[in-house]
Amino acid sequence: MDPDLSQLDERLADHDVDGYLIDAASEDADQYYLSGFDAPDPFLTLYDGSVRLLFTRSLEFGRAKRESHAKTVERLTDYGYDDLLDSYDPAEAVVRGRAAFLDAYDVESVAAPPRFPLQTADGLREQGVDVVVDDSETVTEIRASKTDEEIEHVRAAQEANEAAMQAAEDLLRRADADGDRLVVDGEVLTSEWVKETIEVTLLRHGCALDETIVACGADAADPHDRGSGPLEPDEPIIVDIFPRDKATKYHADMTRTFCAGEPDPEVREWYDLTERAYRAALDAVEPGATGKDVHDAACDVYEDAGLPTLRNDPSTETGFIHSTGHGVGLDVHELPRIAPDGGELEPGHVITIEPGLYDPDVGGVRIEDLVVVTEDGHENLTDYPVSLVVE
Amino acid sequence: MDPDLSQLDERLADHDVDGYLIDAASEDADQYYLSGFDAPDPFLTLYDGSVRLLFTRSLEFGRAKRESHAKTVERLTDYGYDDLLDSYDPAEAVVRGRAAFLDAYDVESVAAPPRFPLQTADGLREQGVDVVVDDSETVTEIRASKTDEEIEHVRAAQEANEAAMQAAEDLLRRADADGDRLVVDGEVLTSEWVKETIEVTLLRHGCALDETIVACGADAADPHDRGSGPLEPDEPIIVDIFPRDKATKYHADMTRTFCAGEPDPEVREWYDLTERAYRAALDAVEPGATGKDVHDAACDVYEDAGLPTLRNDPSTETGFIHSTGHGVGLDVHELPRIAPDGGELEPGHVITIEPGLYDPDVGGVRIEDLVVVTEDGHENLTDYPVSLVVE
Repeated sequence: MDPDLSQLDERLADHDVDGYLIDAASEDADQYYLSGFDAPDPFLTLYDGSVRLLFTRSLEFGRAKRESHAKTVERLTDYGYDDLLDSYDPAEAVVRGRAAFLDAYDVESVAAPPRFPLQTADGLREQGVDVVVDDSETVTEIRASKTDEEIEHVRAAQEANEAAMQAAEDLLRRADADGDRLVVDGEVLTSEWVKETIEVTLLRHGCALDETIVACGADAADPHDRGSGPLEPDEPIIVDIFPRDKATKYHADMTRTFCAGEPDPEVREWYDLTERAYRAALDAVEPGATGKDVHDAACDVYEDAGLPTLRNDPSTETGFIHSTGHGVGLDVHELPRIAPDGGELEPGHVITIEPGLYDPDVGGVRIEDLVVVTEDGHENLTDYPVSLVVE
Repeated sequence: MDPDLSQLDERLADHDVDGYLIDAASEDADQYYLSGFDAPDPFLTLYDGSVRLLFTRSLEFGRAKRESHAKTVERLTDYGYDDLLDSYDPAEAVVRGRAAFLDAYDVESVAAPPRFPLQTADGLREQGVDVVVDDSETVTEIRASKTDEEIEHVRAAQEANEAAMQAAEDLLRRADADGDRLVVDGEVLTSEWVKETIEVTLLRHGCALDETIVACGADAADPHDRGSGPLEPDEPIIVDIFPRDKATKYHADMTRTFCAGEPDPEVREWYDLTERAYRAALDAVEPGATGKDVHDAACDVYEDAGLPTLRNDPSTETGFIHSTGHGVGLDVHELPRIAPDGGELEPGHVITIEPGLYDPDVGGVRIEDLVVVTEDGHENLTDYPVSLVVE
């Protein structure tokens, strides 16, 4: 896929610089998007109207020439690196070779992403190159609006995700209570067992398994706890799955909260409230609305019910203690923000809607769908029931 | 595990700075090592004689207080972040909150890793904090020397790795030639099938599957090509597996090259040569030897046989076109370097030895073991036969 980089051209003009520079491995989604190349070690991508790659070592050179969409692919050896090593230490030789590369394309000033490596920036500055931070993260911004092809990649990952969620729910359905444990076929059902079921399912659907959350009780009260150990009957169990399709590198993301047995009335109330917050937030998703509007819709439901949110109590450690959602694409968390600082939604934005409630004394409840903003509203990419109790 | 940070104290004195600062998520191994905390989003770790964490959002706060080995765990809200947001944009408010955090500990100057984010560095500099690059990557250097506990983590990952390699070899052993394809139970054997077998095996052994290489023919001639499509009889198939243990986050790494059928005489010659280079490099591993010495031992074998290496031809795209090895730990590629610029080996260094030969006209051959440098030589953590032909 050749990305539309016209927004980057505009930003370079705004910054009054000659080029945009990324120094990162392809696990950095901006690097992968701009370079069109997948490499495990950092390399340099220059955009000066054309995409140009520079490698330190030879290892990736041949493959980059074949696979990337770059106009030029070069190596430091093409810029006197081996001679530079006679006079300078390796870090300094790399910087001087890179400065020579920029000079060859008449690039005297560059904008760079906020997380651009300080060593490269300071080194280039010493060589007379002007380096400014692109606070607005232009490549990340460009990535937020997906093409139809990218949306299909997310949809495919989400289908794998739903197969994995189904496998997890099926396993929970087979469980019986035995005191304060759940057991399946006489074995204690653990978070690890459910995660393995999820992950093997994802693998068989071509997805890499980043981490998975299967969290029960106090574990579930911490939104980032992955969960561990035996799962309990009658307790809410948060299952949050966010796979990456190995072929396309695009992610999906969804959460359901299940209870095997009879939930406590407070958990049932929290679930119903969270489902209302989720539906209110979904209703707010349309072009022209902001991420803040959507987040506010979820906060309103919780606050009206008397529960704390970060909006009405920034230091709270219980209640609704995260944002309502985030963009999903090459990164599982990317723009736009569905949060207090969330800007305007546009068609092609792929976002999660995932309100939740947390308290170590109660547990945790979260419901999360993945939707794409369309010209006249949104399309829900998630096709999975919303139901607490596993019958 | 509480790391021994005395080397960091010395480096701070060398740099004449008050602290060491990391701004990264825990996928950055230095961050994970220094903070003792696993979080998916970037946070700030200050070392000023004590480890101190600062979070932007509340989300990780509770867990960090419980799980990290930090002396203090704080949030930007503790440094007036919410008021700052009334006067500044979020990026500026974050920097000013962070500057207030540093000021609270009388930290006026910091050293930072080479890949420290430029935006944070420039922002802190504007607030009067002196930020210098720690070219020597002190935390990465400290991580290179493993404790006994860390070596056990690597050993456990390597045992899972060998189970996965065995599963791959067993599958290849079941294959029959059908024209230019390998078939198992009537199905065409593909790179993807072997990888799935490897990855499910790793998963069942508690390992996360980073990518896996199963590359045949021209794919195998590119050391970083992951391989795809049908595998061929009588051709060398490189299987390179580098799992991460999910519980400990430590990696293992090993490669074998298999041939189902009768290898071409040139492939056989390349294999025998590579096995000699591998044994020569292994023999060179002992404390006091340098990574360069070990790399030279492998290059000598290849060059004596008339094959090109990057040592005698820096621009070659065939022959021995990578370094002999690398450190393995929290990162699958870390210090020390077993390469032209590799420094002195010390007991506790965990490294790979992985010479190989590549040419699109022939294919690729690589043999890789994982070893730990000991007081009087090395211990091979790999217990897997070295044999080309799958009988």
